[in-house]
Amino acid sequence: MIPRYTPTDFAALWSTEKRYQTWLEVELAACEAMEAAGSVPKGTAAQIRPLASELVPERIDEIERTTRHDVIAFLTHVEELAGAPARFLHRGMTSSDVLDSSLAILLREATDKLIERLEKLLTAFRGRIEEHRKTPMIGRSHGIHAEPITFGLALAGHYAELARGKRELVNARATIAVGKIAGAVGTYAHLTPAIEKDALTRLGLGGETVATQIVSRDRHAVLTSAMATVATSIERFATNVRHWQRTELTEAEEAFAKGQKGSSAMPHKRNPVLSENLCGLARVVRAAVTPAFENMALWHERDISHSSVERMLLPDATATLAFMLDRTKGLVEGLVVYPDNLKKNLEMSGGLWASEGILLALVDKGMGRQDGYVLVQRNAMRAFHKEGSFVDLLLADADLRKHLSETEIRNQFDLEHALAHVDTIIDRALAVGAAS
Amino acid sequence: MIPRYTPTDFAALWSTEKRYQTWLEVELAACEAMEAAGSVPKGTAAQIRPLASELVPERIDEIERTTRHDVIAFLTHVEELAGAPARFLHRGMTSSDVLDSSLAILLREATDKLIERLEKLLTAFRGRIEEHRKTPMIGRSHGIHAEPITFGLALAGHYAELARGKRELVNARATIAVGKIAGAVGTYAHLTPAIEKDALTRLGLGGETVATQIVSRDRHAVLTSAMATVATSIERFATNVRHWQRTELTEAEEAFAKGQKGSSAMPHKRNPVLSENLCGLARVVRAAVTPAFENMALWHERDISHSSVERMLLPDATATLAFMLDRTKGLVEGLVVYPDNLKKNLEMSGGLWASEGILLALVDKGMGRQDGYVLVQRNAMRAFHKEGSFVDLLLADADLRKHLSETEIRNQFDLEHALAHVDTIIDRALAVGAAS
Amino acid sequence: MIPRYTPTDFAALWSTEKRYQTWLEVELAACEAMEAAGSVPKGTAAQIRPLASELVPERIDEIERTTRHDVIAFLTHVEELAGAPARFLHRGMTSSDVLDSSLAILLREATDKLIERLEKLLTAFRGRIEEHRKTPMIGRSHGIHAEPITFGLALAGHYAELARGKRELVNARATIAVGKIAGAVGTYAHLTPAIEKDALTRLGLGGETVATQIVSRDRHAVLTSAMATVATSIERFATNVRHWQRTELTEAEEAFAKGQKGSSAMPHKRNPVLSENLCGLARVVRAAVTPAFENMALWHERDISHSSVERMLLPDATATLAFMLDRTKGLVEGLVVYPDNLKKNLEMSGGLWASEGILLALVDKGMGRQDGYVLVQRNAMRAFHKEGSFVDLLLADADLRKHLSETEIRNQFDLEHALAHVDTIIDRALAVGAAS
Amino acid sequence: MIPRYTPTDFAALWSTEKRYQTWLEVELAACEAMEAAGSVPKGTAAQIRPLASELVPERIDEIERTTRHDVIAFLTHVEELAGAPARFLHRGMTSSDVLDSSLAILLREATDKLIERLEKLLTAFRGRIEEHRKTPMIGRSHGIHAEPITFGLALAGHYAELARGKRELVNARATIAVGKIAGAVGTYAHLTPAIEKDALTRLGLGGETVATQIVSRDRHAVLTSAMATVATSIERFATNVRHWQRTELTEAEEAFAKGQKGSSAMPHKRNPVLSENLCGLARVVRAAVTPAFENMALWHERDISHSSVERMLLPDATATLAFMLDRTKGLVEGLVVYPDNLKKNLEMSGGLWASEGILLALVDKGMGRQDGYVLVQRNAMRAFHKEGSFVDLLLADADLRKHLSETEIRNQFDLEHALAHVDTIIDRALAVGAAS
Repeated sequence: MIPRYTPTDFAALWSTEKRYQTWLEVELAACEAMEAAGSVPKGTAAQIRPLASELVPERIDEIERTTRHDVIAFLTHVEELAGAPARFLHRGMTSSDVLDSSLAILLREATDKLIERLEKLLTAFRGRIEEHRKTPMIGRSHGIHAEPITFGLALAGHYAELARGKRELVNARATIAVGKIAGAVGTYAHLTPAIEKDALTRLGLGGETVATQIVSRDRHAVLTSAMATVATSIERFATNVRHWQRTELTEAEEAFAKGQKGSSAMPHKRNPVLSENLCGLARVVRAAVTPAFENMALWHERDISHSSVERMLLPDATATLAFMLDRTKGLVEGLVVYPDNLKKNLEMSGGLWASEGILLALVDKGMGRQDGYVLVQRNAMRAFHKEGSFVDLLLADADLRKHLSETEIRNQFDLEHALAHVDTIIDRALAVGAAS
Repeated sequence: MIPRYTPTDFAALWSTEKRYQTWLEVELAACEAMEAAGSVPKGTAAQIRPLASELVPERIDEIERTTRHDVIAFLTHVEELAGAPARFLHRGMTSSDVLDSSLAILLREATDKLIERLEKLLTAFRGRIEEHRKTPMIGRSHGIHAEPITFGLALAGHYAELARGKRELVNARATIAVGKIAGAVGTYAHLTPAIEKDALTRLGLGGETVATQIVSRDRHAVLTSAMATVATSIERFATNVRHWQRTELTEAEEAFAKGQKGSSAMPHKRNPVLSENLCGLARVVRAAVTPAFENMALWHERDISHSSVERMLLPDATATLAFMLDRTKGLVEGLVVYPDNLKKNLEMSGGLWASEGILLALVDKGMGRQDGYVLVQRNAMRAFHKEGSFVDLLLADADLRKHLSETEIRNQFDLEHALAHVDTIIDRALAVGAAS
Repeated sequence: MIPRYTPTDFAALWSTEKRYQTWLEVELAACEAMEAAGSVPKGTAAQIRPLASELVPERIDEIERTTRHDVIAFLTHVEELAGAPARFLHRGMTSSDVLDSSLAILLREATDKLIERLEKLLTAFRGRIEEHRKTPMIGRSHGIHAEPITFGLALAGHYAELARGKRELVNARATIAVGKIAGAVGTYAHLTPAIEKDALTRLGLGGETVATQIVSRDRHAVLTSAMATVATSIERFATNVRHWQRTELTEAEEAFAKGQKGSSAMPHKRNPVLSENLCGLARVVRAAVTPAFENMALWHERDISHSSVERMLLPDATATLAFMLDRTKGLVEGLVVYPDNLKKNLEMSGGLWASEGILLALVDKGMGRQDGYVLVQRNAMRAFHKEGSFVDLLLADADLRKHLSETEIRNQFDLEHALAHVDTIIDRALAVGAAS
Repeated sequence: MIPRYTPTDFAALWSTEKRYQTWLEVELAACEAMEAAGSVPKGTAAQIRPLASELVPERIDEIERTTRHDVIAFLTHVEELAGAPARFLHRGMTSSDVLDSSLAILLREATDKLIERLEKLLTAFRGRIEEHRKTPMIGRSHGIHAEPITFGLALAGHYAELARGKRELVNARATIAVGKIAGAVGTYAHLTPAIEKDALTRLGLGGETVATQIVSRDRHAVLTSAMATVATSIERFATNVRHWQRTELTEAEEAFAKGQKGSSAMPHKRNPVLSENLCGLARVVRAAVTPAFENMALWHERDISHSSVERMLLPDATATLAFMLDRTKGLVEGLVVYPDNLKKNLEMSGGLWASEGILLALVDKGMGRQDGYVLVQRNAMRAFHKEGSFVDLLLADADLRKHLSETEIRNQFDLEHALAHVDTIIDRALAVGAAS
């Protein structure tokens, strides 16, 4: 997390203060569950809870320099503040009961924030999809003009993909919202499954099926993969914005703020820097995936090698993805679309996009598919080399005219026909997105 | 895929023959749908279908050397075999309609095979869990003796994790079983959504919400991540087998076949080579994850950069994971467990594992947690340095004896008590696994 | 390795036959060294060597199914063929002495082949660089027109990068060409350092400084990273070819073979599929990097987890990179460059590329940099929005004309001046490449 | 970078202050070169240089919120401070001239710091290697006892690997210490190669052979791979420390500080947490490798997608590796070695390690290798199953005694003989390390 790419709420979520507050929250929930079970005196948690606001992170860090153990340092500090009642905290628990349940709380909150942002992004897309439902443009495969689509359809493709990503995040949220209050090696040696269930319910968490000393790390890998999927879906969109904004296309552009400067050397530049930035940040989010997998195969009932990785990469990945979602929402909302340029580019290839229709018309007249292909391709290549417009070349090709009349040829150049099903596809996407 | 690590059924699944057969299957399903819709003469598919067994992969490859386009080569060959009716195949379709729908069929089949194997592995685990429900062993964190668990509980942890992995695979199967018969840029310019729906239903596939020229590659990334999760869960288990088999532990061993040799130099060796192999293969499966993400951000309505990656890594990842599941099943079934050694190791630390119980007993007597910690730790360290057994040292510690009686001390060394909740945890795991 | 992407010589290099031949080569070199040292009867190797051509891989595989150990199976087979003398083979050696020294030989050969191919690619580049030294084109940053370059200069940038990659490969070759004949845990317990040195010298290999049971795996990671660097440098070039070939640019195109077909649906398509394929294959080569790192941290004096990874990914990565180098060479040689289109695109922005020169001219007249920027940018934006050509707008801007005369303005649009240093840069690149 | 894992000097190196200071350093070096070349008035740099200490990072950030361009914001602030002379700064330059030359300076400094730390670590190793040159221990392959080594030899293997890693870092330093003062698209349109050379020489940097708008990103990938190699070499060492410290081995332990606590639940624990932490941090350093490769294939003369990745991951990777090197040095120096336990473990397998020697003795007597193997293995397996000590079983095996006398058998159990060459290997390692 660097300030440049960290939304305020994620800076707060991953702060030291929040970390210790959440630890205390877990300790108190466990304490209350033990009070209810009778293993700790009633009222203990109630006595300690008001002290939450008095926790001094710096003091905990100071103690840790001696104990070299963060949870023990924390408990020592709580004992400093609360005195005698504090000794009932953490009863039968191990550090990971606190750490992993806290991490589950923080990751659940992070995931909720991501889902909320993703929903806003989907909303932003919906507006622009409707706006450009019928704005024709050339579809491209391999960067080469293919057949017509609409700008709204292109957006709908990104929208549908992001809606699938939301489903992955929602699944991952369920996987990650799992804590553990089961003691040293997960056996409840000085606890009970009932106490764990009560405590975790107070925290809104499920319980690990079989904990070792810790919650199993496949759960975190699942979350990280889901985040990488969403980040990469954004990268696909951002890549297309970069294409659309190329000088030669200028089909759409990032909004250029008043006062913004594109280049220190070249005052004429308007660069798709937000989109490029999103492509880079997707690499950062994905960078957490392999370490998350490498964190899974811990030794025996646990080793702590996963901890340093999670301290660095979970805040990084979640905050960066949140930043990306915010930025992409702004990008979508502000995107300046140039329908005239879309039209100009669509038409620049002189109707080459109709080549498939001509081929099919020939097949319908009884010509073999591969023979027809050759006949159409030779005219396409001439048009491509600027020897005439495609339609004129076709009309002038005697071999071809043996099979197709002028009307039959001209019919294939009808844009309305080519785009007849676009509404259906867009409606389908919006329905799927709404249900996601 | 190398023969050494490729199950027979996966060699067949990813063969050239199967590939072309599946292409034809897709073309014929689409043809039948078009027949039903009236855009192709009735009976076309029925005429061509019997020729499926006559496809000659080598001939298709030969034609491809001229056309440099695999689907066109395939269609040319079908036209060679079927003559006139073949010209109605592929009507309004683009190569990716065939390729991506076929890939969906093959990946659905691959995923089904993986799920089936994983279920068998879960079954193998269940047997050994029951067998060792109550076989005590020392739990270890950081490789250091912690507190007692049972061998069955350790297995149950792996079982529960793999059952979660099954859920990921099942989700991924739904995500990947999606085809597309929508033409060049997904607009059904010469097709209809109804024809696609009919064709894909015949193939048992869902339809892409918004296709570009292709099915969106986030779907394949989701499958790859799910496979990596399962592979890495296996790695965690294999890592523990390797630990258990260490000379100093010898708690469990891979079955050693008659005639097997451990080392070309050292005839005494019995090495956990299957488990080490599984750890390596997990790296191979994971290696497909990043390329699968890098395949997502294709340009505009598609580029073909994903194709070479998928040709190599999807067969590799699926076949390797299948091989891993088979091998792990054998490993679990054949695992030789040494209860005597488990017991010996459990006892070797002279009851140090009871230190937490002593600490809690002190806290119950009113001692502050950190004070109690110091008191217990000093005896633990002496026991660790072989200055006496832990229980004897505790009994001889005058400061400690001010708070605890001999009985109170000895009670903490009761193994039954320490393992009282293990049955509950194991039952919970088995229930979750059964429901997965 | 799949046939589609495997050059013939790499198929041979990684064949089972070659593998066993190389094992025998290592055993015989070690045997000769022991003969020289007097620990094995003179003439042993000479008796066995002629049998090399009689090795039957299938028989070795058959034996391995019993021994479950490949080197022991191999030695058993050699003993079947050679009888009594074979018992002196492998004396004091461990399997890894054979396996790792053989792998070093194969990887050295693979690396030599890669370097040779890379040199041919550099040669291909040199020809095209010279050809287009002075072919002007617009330079682009962020996909947006920036200032003029030449096509030869663009190629020279890729050339210089690939020449650096060659240096990495050459370094990696030295790192990887290291064997080991030091016995079970590398202590020469039944060998001597002198025997190892003699044997490895016969094989053209250096010796591992401190072997455990194996050659250290950092060496293989270094090679894999070097290969990934070269593959990704090719990806950068291929990405630019894809850009140049875009319909709107058509600045350069992949050679389109006679008979080649671009699309099964659209006969007009000419797609940069070779370049896209190269981008995908770069992902495949890079996929070997993380597993190569994960292979490094083996346990104690070795575990065998690296073996399965290397069996799959080292042939894949080396063969795929070789294929990429071949394909890229063909791509460079066949690249169809369109100087007219390069010129047309350069001019399409009405000289906006001169904006920096105007800014500098203003600064030279004493204007503050940021004030000048504002003045130039406002005209650039008007030109961008087609309100006139950039030069005319500048000439008509009264504020600007207070500082610059018509001549001073027009001078900034001189292409010769803008490209004055290009020759120097290209010469520098060619000199560096020649020295690489 | 999080404070927990960031050495102070790296926090300073990657601070905003240092960043802007380095930018100014580059601008002034370029300015001085232009003064020398006559394109900027003499004395300009000298007038501005004293203002370096007055730069206010917050003010630059404030301006950037309007310009959305960091270098322009910086220049605007310098102009605020320096007035008129500032307009000569950045003449003919583009932002990347400043950014990339600065990054080269910072990475050169970072790499120097890493090399310096690595040298200190090598020194620490040397002391412990000498100390334990002759401390015997059992070598292990696959976690199973193999043959004897010494603890010093095990350390020497790690030492030699890290010395190779130093070579990689030194190479990478040369690759990365390259700047660029060549203007917008690297053509020196308003500069000269001579000015660049002068400026970069003042900064101690080489020049990019062919710059696009930026320095080529293969250089940064090379550095990242080198860092990952060193980090993973540390992981291998840390993994072995974790093994040595296992309860059942207790061959070596991390120094346990006074006051340190191992577990919040279990006061008896002494955990190898530093080593586990190092294993985790290696994953973090490696996480930068793939993004560094993904940063290479930028579009045309540059896009800015690499920037966000580098802002986050280059500080992270360099600082984390520096922290790892510091921590590993402390770990090596403080490592508590238990020669008695090493001896006890060596002997626990009753001399099974001598099995190879017995096999070779049989071969020397004329027995076939595979026959001998069977004979030795059957005794080894009985010893393994505690049916007697290996030497006694061998002496009692009538078949074997037909070939070997008691003396010939007992000779194979001579530790001195087994370790005869260890000194040679260690000397070799120390010589290589000294030369690195």
